[in-house]
Amino acid sequence: MSRPSISRNDAPLFDRVAIIGLGLIGSSLARAIKRTKLAKQLIGCEVNAASRRVATKLKLADRIVGDAATAVAGADLVIVATPQSAYAAVGKAIGGKLKPGAIVTDVGSVKEAAQRVLGAHLKGDVHLIPGHPVAGTENSGPAAGFADLFLGRWCIITPPKGAKKQAVSKVREMWRRCGMHVEVMDAAHHDRVLAITSHVPHLIAYTIVNTVSDLEAHMRFEVIKFAASGFRDFTRVAASDPVMWRDIFLNNREAVLEMMGRLYEDIALLQKAIRNDDGKTLHRVFTRSRRIRRSIVQAKQD
Amino acid sequence: MSRPSISRNDAPLFDRVAIIGLGLIGSSLARAIKRTKLAKQLIGCEVNAASRRVATKLKLADRIVGDAATAVAGADLVIVATPQSAYAAVGKAIGGKLKPGAIVTDVGSVKEAAQRVLGAHLKGDVHLIPGHPVAGTENSGPAAGFADLFLGRWCIITPPKGAKKQAVSKVREMWRRCGMHVEVMDAAHHDRVLAITSHVPHLIAYTIVNTVSDLEAHMRFEVIKFAASGFRDFTRVAASDPVMWRDIFLNNREAVLEMMGRLYEDIALLQKAIRNDDGKTLHRVFTRSRRIRRSIVQAKQD
Repeated sequence: MSRPSISRNDAPLFDRVAIIGLGLIGSSLARAIKRTKLAKQLIGCEVNAASRRVATKLKLADRIVGDAATAVAGADLVIVATPQSAYAAVGKAIGGKLKPGAIVTDVGSVKEAAQRVLGAHLKGDVHLIPGHPVAGTENSGPAAGFADLFLGRWCIITPPKGAKKQAVSKVREMWRRCGMHVEVMDAAHHDRVLAITSHVPHLIAYTIVNTVSDLEAHMRFEVIKFAASGFRDFTRVAASDPVMWRDIFLNNREAVLEMMGRLYEDIALLQKAIRNDDGKTLHRVFTRSRRIRRSIVQAKQD
Repeated sequence: MSRPSISRNDAPLFDRVAIIGLGLIGSSLARAIKRTKLAKQLIGCEVNAASRRVATKLKLADRIVGDAATAVAGADLVIVATPQSAYAAVGKAIGGKLKPGAIVTDVGSVKEAAQRVLGAHLKGDVHLIPGHPVAGTENSGPAAGFADLFLGRWCIITPPKGAKKQAVSKVREMWRRCGMHVEVMDAAHHDRVLAITSHVPHLIAYTIVNTVSDLEAHMRFEVIKFAASGFRDFTRVAASDPVMWRDIFLNNREAVLEMMGRLYEDIALLQKAIRNDDGKTLHRVFTRSRRIRRSIVQAKQD
């Protein structure tokens, strides 16, 4: 794998790019696009007035507007970077305003739903190429973004059947210039892989943090005071954006519930081993986990 | 809270200290004791021949032996730092060899069991003051230790009823000089707090990593390749020492199973919300988790 870097010396890829939504991902991408000069002109759209003021102050784009239909006028590339619950409204707003031949992509975590919801509003002369940059932090909003967020991480693109090759290539090239490793995948497969690597872990983290907060007041204080490594890691994960995560679970329901079912079966095995004083099983399972961890370290994703 | 630091200019606290077990914690403590000069003489004991060679090469103590009974002869303080499954054998080996008036402490994660198992072998003229330095990394063995491991972390001491105040003070002072904040707590209460902050999170982490490894070979590869933040955090937790964790679950069975029961109830609520398309509940729970995370950050445990 080549060393990731941000490309600065290539010719612009697009004349005009519009980013709808300037949260953590949208604002990071705006910064990366400006730095790489991959668009001649960058338009930002942020519906929230307070966030829009912040984005304007930070000069995240050449022009920042509050209305998606205005933002996409004349754009060669439109990047939808709102929470996925806003996709229907965004699709409806921009559907009739897009330039013929424009490419529409997104950054959402659930790709079948992205294709279905955005696709319902786009005309046949527009190319929808959904994408998912697998990158993020526990912070949100336009001030939390930074151009290096994508560096060395994977971006998964899920073009629908029959997608125009040139459109796929341009989206791929955009992310590559932002420093990402890009992979093309089937949307349904993407959603199952992410359910187990990301969505279910977050669901458990949210749950355990809430279980703690339900413990009696006295004990709760001590839990926070003595928060040991396991719990600290969980709370970090559980601090991510509530709106984004609500939308992920609602949009990837089937895959998440399937993976939860698999997880339950495995937890039951360990619980039974604890109850039966079965140290052999516990040791075997824990040794195996350690091996898997090492293969992840070797895959350089950490 | 005062800024944590390692004390170097105090008079020695003990004439002779013996550490039984030179893994991550034992070897880190050996380094901290040498650096702080809190013992005039330090004896190390490591039953594993390969680890003993490493410990000897690293000069972790003034003398390093393979036999616990030899190690504790004449010691004012004995620190048991083996996996908790070895406590019965260690107790049996040292029970009749301890100097009258000696203090025995340990570093295990489950305090009721430590008191019960070690206590069964000690005579009445010896002071057992169990302790738990809440610190660690995912690595193990004598080479993985470092003196700063304890810096700024909590150490929980769980003296039995009627423990001699002076003995408690000396154990407390030892950890303070190693840079820890020290708190005294009831052993049973300690075990419940740690069950939810540390033991249950580790159990889930181990489970989810194993669930992933059970997925079909093709998908597993992608899980590792694209390991998103949630999964990476889990695998880090799941890479901890398998023997130590087996012993924790077997020794803290009741508290772990109780906390798992609470967790299940909360997971069921979120699963139901996902199934019923209930975004309001999801958003409320996720927002609450974020708040709790912030109170932990404010408690400076991260």
